[in-house]
Amino acid sequence: MSKNIKKIGVMTSGGDAPGMNAAIRSVVRTCAYYNIECVGIYRGFEGIMEGDFRSMDARSVKGIVNKGGTVLKSARSKEFRTPEGRKIAHDQLKSANVDALVVIGGDGTFNGGLVFNKEYDFPIIGIPCTIDNDIFGTTHTIGFDTALNTVVDCIDKIRDTASSHNRLFFVEVMGRDVGHIALNAGVGAGAEEILIPEENLGLDRLLESLHRSKRSGKSSSIVVVAEGDKIGKNVFELKDYVEANMDEYDVRVSVLGHMQRGGSPSCFDRVLASRMGVKAVETLLEGKTNYMVGLLNEKMELTHLREAVKGKSKIDRELLRVSEIMTT
Amino acid sequence: MSKNIKKIGVMTSGGDAPGMNAAIRSVVRTCAYYNIECVGIYRGFEGIMEGDFRSMDARSVKGIVNKGGTVLKSARSKEFRTPEGRKIAHDQLKSANVDALVVIGGDGTFNGGLVFNKEYDFPIIGIPCTIDNDIFGTTHTIGFDTALNTVVDCIDKIRDTASSHNRLFFVEVMGRDVGHIALNAGVGAGAEEILIPEENLGLDRLLESLHRSKRSGKSSSIVVVAEGDKIGKNVFELKDYVEANMDEYDVRVSVLGHMQRGGSPSCFDRVLASRMGVKAVETLLEGKTNYMVGLLNEKMELTHLREAVKGKSKIDRELLRVSEIMTT
Amino acid sequence: MSKNIKKIGVMTSGGDAPGMNAAIRSVVRTCAYYNIECVGIYRGFEGIMEGDFRSMDARSVKGIVNKGGTVLKSARSKEFRTPEGRKIAHDQLKSANVDALVVIGGDGTFNGGLVFNKEYDFPIIGIPCTIDNDIFGTTHTIGFDTALNTVVDCIDKIRDTASSHNRLFFVEVMGRDVGHIALNAGVGAGAEEILIPEENLGLDRLLESLHRSKRSGKSSSIVVVAEGDKIGKNVFELKDYVEANMDEYDVRVSVLGHMQRGGSPSCFDRVLASRMGVKAVETLLEGKTNYMVGLLNEKMELTHLREAVKGKSKIDRELLRVSEIMTT
Amino acid sequence: MSKNIKKIGVMTSGGDAPGMNAAIRSVVRTCAYYNIECVGIYRGFEGIMEGDFRSMDARSVKGIVNKGGTVLKSARSKEFRTPEGRKIAHDQLKSANVDALVVIGGDGTFNGGLVFNKEYDFPIIGIPCTIDNDIFGTTHTIGFDTALNTVVDCIDKIRDTASSHNRLFFVEVMGRDVGHIALNAGVGAGAEEILIPEENLGLDRLLESLHRSKRSGKSSSIVVVAEGDKIGKNVFELKDYVEANMDEYDVRVSVLGHMQRGGSPSCFDRVLASRMGVKAVETLLEGKTNYMVGLLNEKMELTHLREAVKGKSKIDRELLRVSEIMTT
Repeated sequence: MSKNIKKIGVMTSGGDAPGMNAAIRSVVRTCAYYNIECVGIYRGFEGIMEGDFRSMDARSVKGIVNKGGTVLKSARSKEFRTPEGRKIAHDQLKSANVDALVVIGGDGTFNGGLVFNKEYDFPIIGIPCTIDNDIFGTTHTIGFDTALNTVVDCIDKIRDTASSHNRLFFVEVMGRDVGHIALNAGVGAGAEEILIPEENLGLDRLLESLHRSKRSGKSSSIVVVAEGDKIGKNVFELKDYVEANMDEYDVRVSVLGHMQRGGSPSCFDRVLASRMGVKAVETLLEGKTNYMVGLLNEKMELTHLREAVKGKSKIDRELLRVSEIMTT
Repeated sequence: MSKNIKKIGVMTSGGDAPGMNAAIRSVVRTCAYYNIECVGIYRGFEGIMEGDFRSMDARSVKGIVNKGGTVLKSARSKEFRTPEGRKIAHDQLKSANVDALVVIGGDGTFNGGLVFNKEYDFPIIGIPCTIDNDIFGTTHTIGFDTALNTVVDCIDKIRDTASSHNRLFFVEVMGRDVGHIALNAGVGAGAEEILIPEENLGLDRLLESLHRSKRSGKSSSIVVVAEGDKIGKNVFELKDYVEANMDEYDVRVSVLGHMQRGGSPSCFDRVLASRMGVKAVETLLEGKTNYMVGLLNEKMELTHLREAVKGKSKIDRELLRVSEIMTT
Repeated sequence: MSKNIKKIGVMTSGGDAPGMNAAIRSVVRTCAYYNIECVGIYRGFEGIMEGDFRSMDARSVKGIVNKGGTVLKSARSKEFRTPEGRKIAHDQLKSANVDALVVIGGDGTFNGGLVFNKEYDFPIIGIPCTIDNDIFGTTHTIGFDTALNTVVDCIDKIRDTASSHNRLFFVEVMGRDVGHIALNAGVGAGAEEILIPEENLGLDRLLESLHRSKRSGKSSSIVVVAEGDKIGKNVFELKDYVEANMDEYDVRVSVLGHMQRGGSPSCFDRVLASRMGVKAVETLLEGKTNYMVGLLNEKMELTHLREAVKGKSKIDRELLRVSEIMTT
Repeated sequence: MSKNIKKIGVMTSGGDAPGMNAAIRSVVRTCAYYNIECVGIYRGFEGIMEGDFRSMDARSVKGIVNKGGTVLKSARSKEFRTPEGRKIAHDQLKSANVDALVVIGGDGTFNGGLVFNKEYDFPIIGIPCTIDNDIFGTTHTIGFDTALNTVVDCIDKIRDTASSHNRLFFVEVMGRDVGHIALNAGVGAGAEEILIPEENLGLDRLLESLHRSKRSGKSSSIVVVAEGDKIGKNVFELKDYVEANMDEYDVRVSVLGHMQRGGSPSCFDRVLASRMGVKAVETLLEGKTNYMVGLLNEKMELTHLREAVKGKSKIDRELLRVSEIMTT
């Protein structure tokens, strides 16, 4: 075990995701287990610069494993992007005797961590936590599984009313510029069509598909649209286009929005967060830095933060094929 | 018991709501209990005109008490609004030996029923089923309670992310031109402000309230907006106005949309639907017509359909006052 | 407004129920609204005697409206039942300048309050909060509605497996010596039979009913049993009896247990708790004591604690009849 | 593609699990996609022998992807274990021109399939579907993920009441003779102790752990107990033992029971079922038999049914270690 690390700081940064609290709890409890001091840092990099730290022991994190959001709050910081900001941050950490950081978030968070490490040689380990699952080096980010359940639960409800009225719904889901949420939730919810940025279906083929779906005897339809879809139209324009070119359907739109980021985490995300928190602290204690912990082949593995940030999480081609077969 | 009624038709019409299936089930089972024939009519008045009937016995409705949507589908019919359409409808009912109708829906449905009864002296009883709770003659419509739970569940999730980021959210909820969903769900979800059509708060007072909320130490805020709110701006305009006049908050919008109409009904709505179905059939068997069954002072009571349609469901002034105190 | 009341204590006592936190929050916020001091008392009467008080302002109760359990904890106290214990309690309240109490709980809680008031003329108002709905003077206690949703949700899941296997399930639900949960949840979940303490069906008629249900074509059955059922057998004996006398069914038992007391409160319970908290504080400020606030005919009404404790909440005969018709 | 397979039969057998319907749907839709006929077989092997078949096309399975239970019902068959029974089964399949089977279930189901294949050289592919996750050759069985969410949701509710009263709860969960549900749900729910068959903690160490937990400041505790736990005592005996040896806690028991098998499947289970159904049909069409499809390293892989039945799914040692650290 690294003798140099006696106090670890933990923070959450960027968009929040269900399971962030479970990850914080795991980092704090693992520190307690190894008799390492732990401080919670509020509002991400912003809080480092302000020295907004609070000492945390095993009992500080009780009752949060099942809570959405983050008890440490999150923020995006402009100042930390400047050398001056990072200097202040480093001074704050030094004066509080913090020896290393566990940063919980997405690629923006990891980028910030990399720059900071480069300038100050400060030990940093990242935990991937975002509903979008757009991080290279882990098959699942914390929060992705919960968001999928939230989305299919919403679409199940929309399906109730869609099939009562023979309606076509465009349902926009989150995912930034990748289609993981749309593809998985679309298959899970039995969507008739799934529009993702990775595949440019084209408006003509969408119409064709909807016509075919109608002919095959389907009385209602759900089209799941990733927010970053490349089809070149946002979800309301899609509605207008289909209504203008197809009068068999009464078309509606639903934008699921920020509720996808909230809610009590699924068991999967709680377990994943617990495992990642342990691995993150143990990796620091082994004297390593600049790694992201990840789930690969069901095991905890390390990926260099540089690769995690540069790499691309790829859409699952096999699942794309499954989705096509399911809409038969 | 009325000797004249040997076969009852049941249909759902207008916007669907959770508990419609439980109401259908109750009507069908009550008919079976009294050895009355029952036919399900598909797609409301549209299905009457098309003779789209299916005989239903007690087993036909098994497993639907907890299902959202309506197994009989719903529709809005233009043709039924014409005398010719209603003539066709009457002929269809006569040729199928249907002696009376139970119509499940809102005021549009009841209006259609009233006109039809006037022209053909056809026995009709209405069951109020809409998430909006905007029907006079019942303290609760079927579906209202479930929609409230759906809305507070969504806002709880939005709250997770709002409080992680110190954000202000405008959340638009359904309710047509009344504020019942907004007021109840707003109190239930602990909203900082609730905008309903019945109360014109005004933009200045909204800003003032948000400033006060910020000063009192709240780091995030949820404003629930009824879709019919009279403040004269839709929810996106509200966002723009507040952002232009207040830079303490990062403002976001969430329009909950049609998921509010779906989902498995709450126990309350299932019980209410069961009670109303029994009362509707028994009222027909007593030889009465043109009534809506309703819940008044916890009991099943009858209100003439004419009054139900003309009357206004009023906003609860005491609850408005409670909502103000809760945002202290 | 009563000039004498400048500081109000609030506590929860007895079995906990969903909505207790929403009630605490409402009492605290209403005190803040009227510029009255408020102290939270931990662990009910036990905490009074120990002087376990904490000052609470409007912000102390943020983020708890949707949380199950009680942040003030609950307990049952033997010592408070003695005159010595109550003397200590009174001294503690006096030395902390607490002028009045809002007690949140069931009839045990109200009894304690009555005795205390009688001895020390100490102003007390009760808020009925128990999942059992067994309190006279209110159609709904806080927590009842949530528990019903929890129970039907569980039974819906059990139904999935029951109907996959043609099984008969006995499902035991809470409710102490009344059948409100069993009757309402039984109707809501579409139970084939409901056994409640108020109605002694008898084992012979139960068998007869199950045989009839089987003959009518039902392939699976759910029997909901109130924990206090008078049939004279607990749920496992019922299973043995039916298995010994009927081999058409594979019989299973499920005792839902304490999860019925937990969970995020329904919108109904949150709104009810908010209304009751306001009414409780305002009643104290009007100089009244020894009342329980309640929901009667949809309005907040007062019932003397003595009546609330002595009175009996009656089973709904109309709903019993509805439940019989639904099992046709 | 195998020319010999023109009609595929699909059945569910053994204990049901959430996602069975999604798997059926996937098999049916994949058959439709490849223009292969598909017949649904009711009640597993029992239904084969009775010839209880129903032709299914893509539309037959609409609206079931999110439903718990199995529309094809399930059963355990004694007769099929005899050569005579299997002879009848084979005759039925032949006379219905069924060329191959997809069997959805657990190891009992796969054993039946193996014997049948050996005797009649009948093509069979298995899909692992059980909440217990006790099948070798797949990291996840269909239903496991949903059951975990159901269990943590229940324990979250129990935690509400446990922490309100400073109670110790023993919560018994399913899992047959393996501890996967207990371990994962225990970590997910933040249990203080997890008792699984794979690890014999012993009663003394349990007491010691509970004492330590109490001393560390925890006011309530949840102990998750696998139903097949080797500690040699069932959950009620555990309660008695702890109460006799430790009076700091008020001890309660909750046996979650069959609700763990029901409910709408999680997105994960729906996606997994969709993938497995496609793989199962495509494997048959490739002319293969006696394989189970499984998820290994995130990919669809085949394992011989003989290995799947003989192999042991192992408890995750790393997760055991995580669980110990989490209870610090």
